[in-house]
Amino acid sequence: MPGSSAITRITAVDMRYPLPPGAGTDAVHTNPEYSLAVTHLETDDAQSATGITLTLGEGNRLVCNAIEILARPLLGRAIEDLMADFGSVSRQIANDSAMRWLGPHKGVVHLALASITNACFDLWAKARGVPLWRLLLELTPEELVGTLDLSYLEEVLPRQCAIDLIRSHQVSRAEREGILKSGYPGYDTSIGWMAYDDDKVRELTKRALARGFSAFKLKVGSADESRDIRRAHMLRECAGDSATLMFDANQQWNLPTAMRMCRDLAVLRPLWIEEPTHPDDLMAHVELASAIAPVKVAAGEHIPNRVVFKNFLRSGAMHYVQADATRLAGVSEFLTVSLLARRLGLPVVPHVGDMGQLHQHLVLFNHIALGHEVNFLEHIPHLRQHFVHPAQVEGGVYRTPQEPGASLDLVNLSVIVA
Amino acid sequence: MPGSSAITRITAVDMRYPLPPGAGTDAVHTNPEYSLAVTHLETDDAQSATGITLTLGEGNRLVCNAIEILARPLLGRAIEDLMADFGSVSRQIANDSAMRWLGPHKGVVHLALASITNACFDLWAKARGVPLWRLLLELTPEELVGTLDLSYLEEVLPRQCAIDLIRSHQVSRAEREGILKSGYPGYDTSIGWMAYDDDKVRELTKRALARGFSAFKLKVGSADESRDIRRAHMLRECAGDSATLMFDANQQWNLPTAMRMCRDLAVLRPLWIEEPTHPDDLMAHVELASAIAPVKVAAGEHIPNRVVFKNFLRSGAMHYVQADATRLAGVSEFLTVSLLARRLGLPVVPHVGDMGQLHQHLVLFNHIALGHEVNFLEHIPHLRQHFVHPAQVEGGVYRTPQEPGASLDLVNLSVIVA
Repeated sequence: MPGSSAITRITAVDMRYPLPPGAGTDAVHTNPEYSLAVTHLETDDAQSATGITLTLGEGNRLVCNAIEILARPLLGRAIEDLMADFGSVSRQIANDSAMRWLGPHKGVVHLALASITNACFDLWAKARGVPLWRLLLELTPEELVGTLDLSYLEEVLPRQCAIDLIRSHQVSRAEREGILKSGYPGYDTSIGWMAYDDDKVRELTKRALARGFSAFKLKVGSADESRDIRRAHMLRECAGDSATLMFDANQQWNLPTAMRMCRDLAVLRPLWIEEPTHPDDLMAHVELASAIAPVKVAAGEHIPNRVVFKNFLRSGAMHYVQADATRLAGVSEFLTVSLLARRLGLPVVPHVGDMGQLHQHLVLFNHIALGHEVNFLEHIPHLRQHFVHPAQVEGGVYRTPQEPGASLDLVNLSVIVA
Repeated sequence: MPGSSAITRITAVDMRYPLPPGAGTDAVHTNPEYSLAVTHLETDDAQSATGITLTLGEGNRLVCNAIEILARPLLGRAIEDLMADFGSVSRQIANDSAMRWLGPHKGVVHLALASITNACFDLWAKARGVPLWRLLLELTPEELVGTLDLSYLEEVLPRQCAIDLIRSHQVSRAEREGILKSGYPGYDTSIGWMAYDDDKVRELTKRALARGFSAFKLKVGSADESRDIRRAHMLRECAGDSATLMFDANQQWNLPTAMRMCRDLAVLRPLWIEEPTHPDDLMAHVELASAIAPVKVAAGEHIPNRVVFKNFLRSGAMHYVQADATRLAGVSEFLTVSLLARRLGLPVVPHVGDMGQLHQHLVLFNHIALGHEVNFLEHIPHLRQHFVHPAQVEGGVYRTPQEPGASLDLVNLSVIVA
């Protein structure tokens, strides 16, 4: 390494990316402008790194302002030194004596920590000249766990238990490394946005089938319930009997409505119903998951931290853990939730607030290092032209990224911050 | 009324109030600068109104910026018209299609909604020329419930159930109106901040006893557990056998530590242990509440919304509901949680992010209109010189406020926004 990669400049950047009409719409987000609150790091040896979190436009600036405040402790730190004890750094930032009041560990301040953390991991991998998945796989169990804040998990995942879990999967790693060659399967969310009309859904589904996808997600939670049902039947007909379907209500239903709609949608054999009700409503998820079996519940896109996940995972509230490293406190808390989920026997199928750029690394680590089963990774190509190294999805499969870092660098960003 | 009190100007103001050394300190907030993110409203008939939420300094500006964005729908609205359907207004703001992503219903955006909502209730009471408690008591059950967003509570508190609950207590109101004359009892939090040394705690306790208080709260959760135990014994000795004591860990403990400390502190017969662990950890609260009985658990200061409260209230996670109208979405969601708590048989003992200014109105309503028992209201006098109408606490009792509005007007604010 040419230098210590000490962080000499931190810039928060408010990046906005308008979408084509109807793209990204769902039951509660009716007019999204995909926006990234970016943490840009520069070092004394001319490295640069990018961390992101997603917002939907208005308010993105608030997250940038929070980044500016919370990232201060990083300035001047050499990246290897920083990451050797990143669990403590993360905990210190998350528990800033004043900013903590604005969460704690949720909302704007936690989104900011996500962006900051992801930039640190990007820089770390670049400084070592390897893609993030390789960096994570090459850490010892102790080094990996040292990047995590395991506080408030003591009764379920004490530090030694996390280390042992990783170590116990080391001997069998080779059996799982084939995924690096075959690529990680994807599923397509972009066929079924809420505002798309039937013809468009059909056309996009056919095109995705032709491109190799066999799993599709449809937005439900419309004010017109019959529209949801009609579209779901249409998708099943169009995609075929063997396709995997998922329905996503984006929190729109209350519990009685969710009960009714999940039963009505069950005839279409969905793999899961996603975000059936308010993401804070643990007991509603538990009641629902029990009532609609064998239909499964997926959630996580709006579950803010490891403590809430611990509660959902332990109580039977969900079957698919949609952790998101841009909602949680970045790579670090994503890995923590992945360890929790592995310990409690649940699969992690990320929600991709990063459009899959970062998560393509993390699902490889989850499978190879933690022994998580291979599922599929959400694919949303909206922003691909804005990434320097857009995820390569071919034949419905994410090709393993080879560039150093976390694949988060954005086109034109270095010009903007210059 | 001289006019329609249409809102013509909305200003968000970042007010900071440094505290004396040690004041306001606890296990996790070590250097607080009490700060208010203020919503200031002006009307076409020269009324003005004030809403607040509390922060601890750094980050207060973020909440002000969120207020500026979220309050836009209020502009031009006549106050009676606005409040006739405030439940819908509140729901619309909380579910702003883009800003919702930053919560939902928690963190910076929800604190902003608290400030906005409280300003609306202040303006409404002033426009009618009555103190807020009287305004609320004079509303019909339908009018009161019309100010609430009851979404995601359908299985526990459907609209008609809320109306019936209020109506069922109307005939017996006269029995409870004596509280308006006697005043609502207070308890003193200011004797036991974390950074105060033993002598100071003793001196302040004696002074508070002499001023008529008989209930006291002590900060615990120190890194030095023996310090907590020693101070707790000291307080019991100083306050006497008949005093009511509460211990507040401010979320510092993990579950194993909380189990141990609550048992060690039980010999001092506290009324409750407050915020024993992470505020998102429902199951830890349930386990703890069951394990440490008959010691009771209090929480709520950091419970962000009615959905999370519904979960805590239904699961036996807490015995005392410390709802705070500056953490929840203002008066409206506070009343919603008060209805929920009444329905589920639990007492509401507010945390006072407003220093009791607003909550002195709300506990009167809770007792008289909802039949909640008389408990006591937290008393923190730090900011009293900054309020135009500081709460009058005499003989350990809050005297019923008589000025029109919600008692939130701040000294010098009209000059600042002019």
